[in-house]
Amino acid sequence: MAPEYEILTPDTVPSYIDGKSDLDGIVDTETLEVTEVGDGNLNLVFVCKDGNGAGICLKQSLPYVRLVGEGWPLTPERVIAEARGLKAAADHVPDLVPAYYGVDHDQYVLAMEYLMGWDMWRIQLNEGNAHPGVGAQLGRYVAALAFYTSFFSIDQGEIKERLAEAINPELCKITEDLVFTEPYIDVENNSYVDELIPEIEGMRADARLRAEVGMLKYRFMTAGEALIHGDLHTGSVMVRQGENGGECKVIDPEFCYYGPVGFDLGALFGNYLAARARAAVLNRPAEYQQWLAAMGPETWDAFEAEMRRLWPERLDKTWTDSFLDAWLAQVAKDTIGYGGCKANRRIIGLAKVTDIQELPHDEHVKAATMVLRTASTWIRDRNTLGTVAEANEVFNSVRAEVLG
Amino acid sequence: MAPEYEILTPDTVPSYIDGKSDLDGIVDTETLEVTEVGDGNLNLVFVCKDGNGAGICLKQSLPYVRLVGEGWPLTPERVIAEARGLKAAADHVPDLVPAYYGVDHDQYVLAMEYLMGWDMWRIQLNEGNAHPGVGAQLGRYVAALAFYTSFFSIDQGEIKERLAEAINPELCKITEDLVFTEPYIDVENNSYVDELIPEIEGMRADARLRAEVGMLKYRFMTAGEALIHGDLHTGSVMVRQGENGGECKVIDPEFCYYGPVGFDLGALFGNYLAARARAAVLNRPAEYQQWLAAMGPETWDAFEAEMRRLWPERLDKTWTDSFLDAWLAQVAKDTIGYGGCKANRRIIGLAKVTDIQELPHDEHVKAATMVLRTASTWIRDRNTLGTVAEANEVFNSVRAEVLG
Repeated sequence: MAPEYEILTPDTVPSYIDGKSDLDGIVDTETLEVTEVGDGNLNLVFVCKDGNGAGICLKQSLPYVRLVGEGWPLTPERVIAEARGLKAAADHVPDLVPAYYGVDHDQYVLAMEYLMGWDMWRIQLNEGNAHPGVGAQLGRYVAALAFYTSFFSIDQGEIKERLAEAINPELCKITEDLVFTEPYIDVENNSYVDELIPEIEGMRADARLRAEVGMLKYRFMTAGEALIHGDLHTGSVMVRQGENGGECKVIDPEFCYYGPVGFDLGALFGNYLAARARAAVLNRPAEYQQWLAAMGPETWDAFEAEMRRLWPERLDKTWTDSFLDAWLAQVAKDTIGYGGCKANRRIIGLAKVTDIQELPHDEHVKAATMVLRTASTWIRDRNTLGTVAEANEVFNSVRAEVLG
Repeated sequence: MAPEYEILTPDTVPSYIDGKSDLDGIVDTETLEVTEVGDGNLNLVFVCKDGNGAGICLKQSLPYVRLVGEGWPLTPERVIAEARGLKAAADHVPDLVPAYYGVDHDQYVLAMEYLMGWDMWRIQLNEGNAHPGVGAQLGRYVAALAFYTSFFSIDQGEIKERLAEAINPELCKITEDLVFTEPYIDVENNSYVDELIPEIEGMRADARLRAEVGMLKYRFMTAGEALIHGDLHTGSVMVRQGENGGECKVIDPEFCYYGPVGFDLGALFGNYLAARARAAVLNRPAEYQQWLAAMGPETWDAFEAEMRRLWPERLDKTWTDSFLDAWLAQVAKDTIGYGGCKANRRIIGLAKVTDIQELPHDEHVKAATMVLRTASTWIRDRNTLGTVAEANEVFNSVRAEVLG
């Protein structure tokens, strides 16, 4: 029989680690300092450091959403999904994720490398600190997942079993509701300052925009292309300055499932947009703003380059090079559209981002307006805007409109 | 323990029926006449009639493909997939399928209504017999599956469980290979008369056409939109003359799985094209040819009308009417493209159709050329041809080119 589900505390963590043979020798539990640092909504996160400087991180799913409390139950199975997403990346791009130590199916605990000395990228962006090269690394992360978890490299029969095993309906429902539905209707979860009402009401009344949001939601719900991270915003990326520029590690893939590859890229684009808008209203140095402005194309170019590099290794050579071109063009359209959806929800819906939320009132209104206006154009015109680099330029004209 | 898997024979069928309580009272097994009529490649089919005129049909999966023999093993689980597809349709459009009596998971036997007095539609089309209204009924069949087996009417969480349960990788692989891959490369399964070589080599050398075939295959492999029939050609449709025109019953959904809705409509379009080409070279009466020419639009219009009729019943009213318009436009593009793929494979690949194959040599070459040329235009230009009615017109100019 499975042991009873017991919520860990900093006091019980050392004996928990002692009881797991997978975790032998990673840290010295006699000298372990344990701190619970979970600032997310769904989990407990224990960072543990021993007297020798070694560390481990344990993440335990709670059977409810922490932000809302016990009234919103959510399966603790999501930590199993997270382990699946982490392991898939650890197998192929180990430099871009924490080391994976294992998952406990009884106590819903994921064990992984503790990222000592790494900072959350969103906070670094908020402070105006550049980590050159991180965008390209994230493009490579998305490409590796897209290539190695899809039938590009896995047998057709096995891939369907994997897709079936990886369905993650409860977490997907959060995305479906919060990203694609709620921002476009009047529900209690939404909140925004009065100055944004005309912009938001305009979006809601725009049948074409609503149709495109619907098509993007539909693809999110039906396109089982590859294992995707599912929540790849700048708060799911840890960064540090390395010898050759910025370095990053992607964390928190608990929303992972078989979905459209462009959704992860879009999540990055939507968050880059928020960062650009913040930098613009705070009048950050031109060099920093230029670095941010190039982040979307940098991410895309690295994604495309990695897909093209891996393409000759595809399992079934009857997929033509011309197919790859067409596939990349489709992923680009998805990226642009999902970028818009991910940006809008962060302004209107339940889960905001500090980039925009913590600005002074006037700057907040200007930045939020720029985000909404750029994002809506991306969604509405995603099929005709051209390349992601061309879509990226939309921000410049919107910025000129809003800031003059 | 499950009873041993035993291949039924006409002699053992009555005692098999006696042993199944599900099948009590459908036929009198004392006076039963049993004939094995399977002319497909995958199964035994027993039609049984008793002395009172009552009937039943039993279909048993063989653990190999019959056309090729024991050298090509294939899971007998496909009869479970067929039962799933039949039951889904029987629940919502009972007039359009045989009555469903149950499935035996141990012996892989599906029990259903015996369609006495119905004929295979392909044979009727080959003979030049019209069954007015069948196209519209098939459009309604596809719409019912699309609406009632998708999240348009099933809870988001449940639909993902259903999709996972309904994966059908072995049967899907047959389609992936025979429809999307083999016609476009040089493999032993293909065969065609020399006169078609220039047309076929032209298709294979056309990078844009190959890219579109790849995108259609990719959607077939990744777009889990609704439970689809998966093999909806005119040999999977039984017809008869009713009081108010033609009537039809759809059979053989053993390829069913969660796939793109346009694939079933495309299968019909591809087979209508073969029937039109046959009628043209045989110089069938103008009225018959006009009836055939209108079949594609008739099917589409009925599909669209039924989707619009059901739309107000959708589970989640936040899907807008403008989304439905965009969704229908996407399904139309898929229909056109899949129509082309399904037509090409019937001329080039392993499983031919009698419509074209059994014509005298010269007529065969002309009909096959018309099919290939129309189908390739459909595939290549599916995103720009406009409505399915406009795509349907392509045949007329091709016909003029070939027949003068």
